[in-house]
Amino acid sequence: MPKLPDHIRCVYQLTVPQTAEADQLAAAIAIEQTVEVPASLITPDIEAKYVGKIESVTQHDDDMFHATIDYPDFLAAYHLPQLLNLLFGNTSIDHRVRLVKCVLTESILRSFHGPNWGIDRWRAHLNVRDRPLVCTAIKPRGETVTHFENLVRDFALGGGDMIKDDHNLVDASFNVFEERIKRCQHAVLNANVQTGHTCVYLPYVCAPVDELERYLECVLAHDVQGILIAPMLYGYDQIRAIASQTDLFIMSHPSVTGAMYAHPSHGIDAGICMGTLMRLAGVDASVFTNFGGRFNIPQAECKRIAANLRAPMGTLSSTWPTPAGGMQLHQLRDLTEMYGDDTILLIGGALLEHRKSLKDATCELMHQLKPA
Amino acid sequence: MPKLPDHIRCVYQLTVPQTAEADQLAAAIAIEQTVEVPASLITPDIEAKYVGKIESVTQHDDDMFHATIDYPDFLAAYHLPQLLNLLFGNTSIDHRVRLVKCVLTESILRSFHGPNWGIDRWRAHLNVRDRPLVCTAIKPRGETVTHFENLVRDFALGGGDMIKDDHNLVDASFNVFEERIKRCQHAVLNANVQTGHTCVYLPYVCAPVDELERYLECVLAHDVQGILIAPMLYGYDQIRAIASQTDLFIMSHPSVTGAMYAHPSHGIDAGICMGTLMRLAGVDASVFTNFGGRFNIPQAECKRIAANLRAPMGTLSSTWPTPAGGMQLHQLRDLTEMYGDDTILLIGGALLEHRKSLKDATCELMHQLKPA
Repeated sequence: MPKLPDHIRCVYQLTVPQTAEADQLAAAIAIEQTVEVPASLITPDIEAKYVGKIESVTQHDDDMFHATIDYPDFLAAYHLPQLLNLLFGNTSIDHRVRLVKCVLTESILRSFHGPNWGIDRWRAHLNVRDRPLVCTAIKPRGETVTHFENLVRDFALGGGDMIKDDHNLVDASFNVFEERIKRCQHAVLNANVQTGHTCVYLPYVCAPVDELERYLECVLAHDVQGILIAPMLYGYDQIRAIASQTDLFIMSHPSVTGAMYAHPSHGIDAGICMGTLMRLAGVDASVFTNFGGRFNIPQAECKRIAANLRAPMGTLSSTWPTPAGGMQLHQLRDLTEMYGDDTILLIGGALLEHRKSLKDATCELMHQLKPA
Repeated sequence: MPKLPDHIRCVYQLTVPQTAEADQLAAAIAIEQTVEVPASLITPDIEAKYVGKIESVTQHDDDMFHATIDYPDFLAAYHLPQLLNLLFGNTSIDHRVRLVKCVLTESILRSFHGPNWGIDRWRAHLNVRDRPLVCTAIKPRGETVTHFENLVRDFALGGGDMIKDDHNLVDASFNVFEERIKRCQHAVLNANVQTGHTCVYLPYVCAPVDELERYLECVLAHDVQGILIAPMLYGYDQIRAIASQTDLFIMSHPSVTGAMYAHPSHGIDAGICMGTLMRLAGVDASVFTNFGGRFNIPQAECKRIAANLRAPMGTLSSTWPTPAGGMQLHQLRDLTEMYGDDTILLIGGALLEHRKSLKDATCELMHQLKPA
């Protein structure tokens, strides 16, 4: 039986014109990401045990090469801060390099608990088996809590599944947060009594890191079952810590994530930073901006995010792909076909500006999504 | 007397070909970063109070415009996670946009404590008044603790000011960390007794976020006075929290920061993300890769980092610009001329691979830097 690999395999896309330059850059990355010293200081023993191994450098396109580099997995220390540093730490500073693939090891995967709910447990909780879930957002910033409360109630009465705070609902005052949570949670629970359906309200948590505990305690005190939070504002590992310390359903907001993936020749492919890393962090639903919406992320990259969130990955539960960002109601059937049923469709503005009441618009939308 | 501004002024660089497109994109940013709804849902009242105000859109170059947008400062909630979201949250996903300037308000600045030590208090502590400080790193990963201990001792005996862990010295085991801290701290204190000079050892802290407290307690238990930590692995605000809860000198490592600034047409200018934001986070020394080293950050951007770290900024102390990344010994005089004396010169590999002993090489280097 072949020995299971104990190395992390990374593929970096290098935007350079010549093979010689690509080889040189690959060699630099293998050292930069591991020991970061001039070659003269690398003993044969350190080279064998610590420096990344270049498996191949192949031309992929004009001016574009792929370098495959293996790292011993213990260099990642089996935790997220160091894993991210190993994959892309110093190399982030070279704008010709993009991490496009990353295969983790069993030992790394075993070190993570993953999503608390993921797809199956959340489906059982909502008792929805055979269609995508629909989520909307209360917005805009500036409206009253009463307005938000009404949106929550109407969406839940219309049969929607999840309703989250807009990520701009951030106030310096804790009381503003508490008041909104209390009233919106009350509204959704009341509506659920009327419909018999389970709609979940997800407040947005954004506070100084040393006040997060207070905000989460407030969420838990009001029996709220999940939150929206932005991993790039806190680091992936803070999200993992919250997931491991609570049984909350965690939806990640993509604020600032574009720094990682938006430029096609630099950064980290969205399949990794919005897929693999979010799932390791215990995110139950990863919100990403869909192709063809307000942002121009390629369709293939959206597919990679969804694939990485749901592909087998040790014992980790799957994460809900949650496309968002300017999706229109008439696109939903096509999107469902592309992403499959195990998807949360996040429709904000398009639902709120519908000519009908939010309740009726939601009702009509949910009806469209029902399996034939 | 004119009313002090209560808006944050941002300048975004837009890489688009036509004025009409630039105007459209600026309008989209002003909404995206604040209320994120279709225009039909924005009432005049919400527009007046919450939506970003476009001050100007001007052509800066072929295919490049600058859009100046003002945001009411209360939208930043006076804390770092929301400030970052306001400046660049969703807009990060548009690869044509780069935040190139950001002027904060007095209320924002008053909300931050800033660096614990900064330049003046650290100079007094080290008793070095009239030259740049010199820092090196113990490396490479894979060497023994005895080797590291010797490097610390020799650098301190040679008259160096600060010696930090390489940021690759991360092990899954806490004991490995504790052993290194104990022995390196002991080595530096012993050397200080011999020299009468104060050299400071800065261990690198990189652990799961829920174990950071344990690692910091270990640092404090050994009377270590500062740490190296990578803000991008934890979010800026975690660094602020550590600075506010301890009296540690905090040196920031640039791991993953390139995701923000490395691409010239996307992200956040290094002057802001390595300068302004690091200082708000309470970083005492911001390490950034120097121009002309292993990475190709433009010289002008390095100058902006240094300027933002030291310019007047409310009551916040100045932060030490700490250029690094392949600096050679023969460049030091020129670099000092460019950056000025209030700089930490971080020289790793070049010092370690010097033909002389580390003690002698350090001694020679310190001698060169002495004021004439």
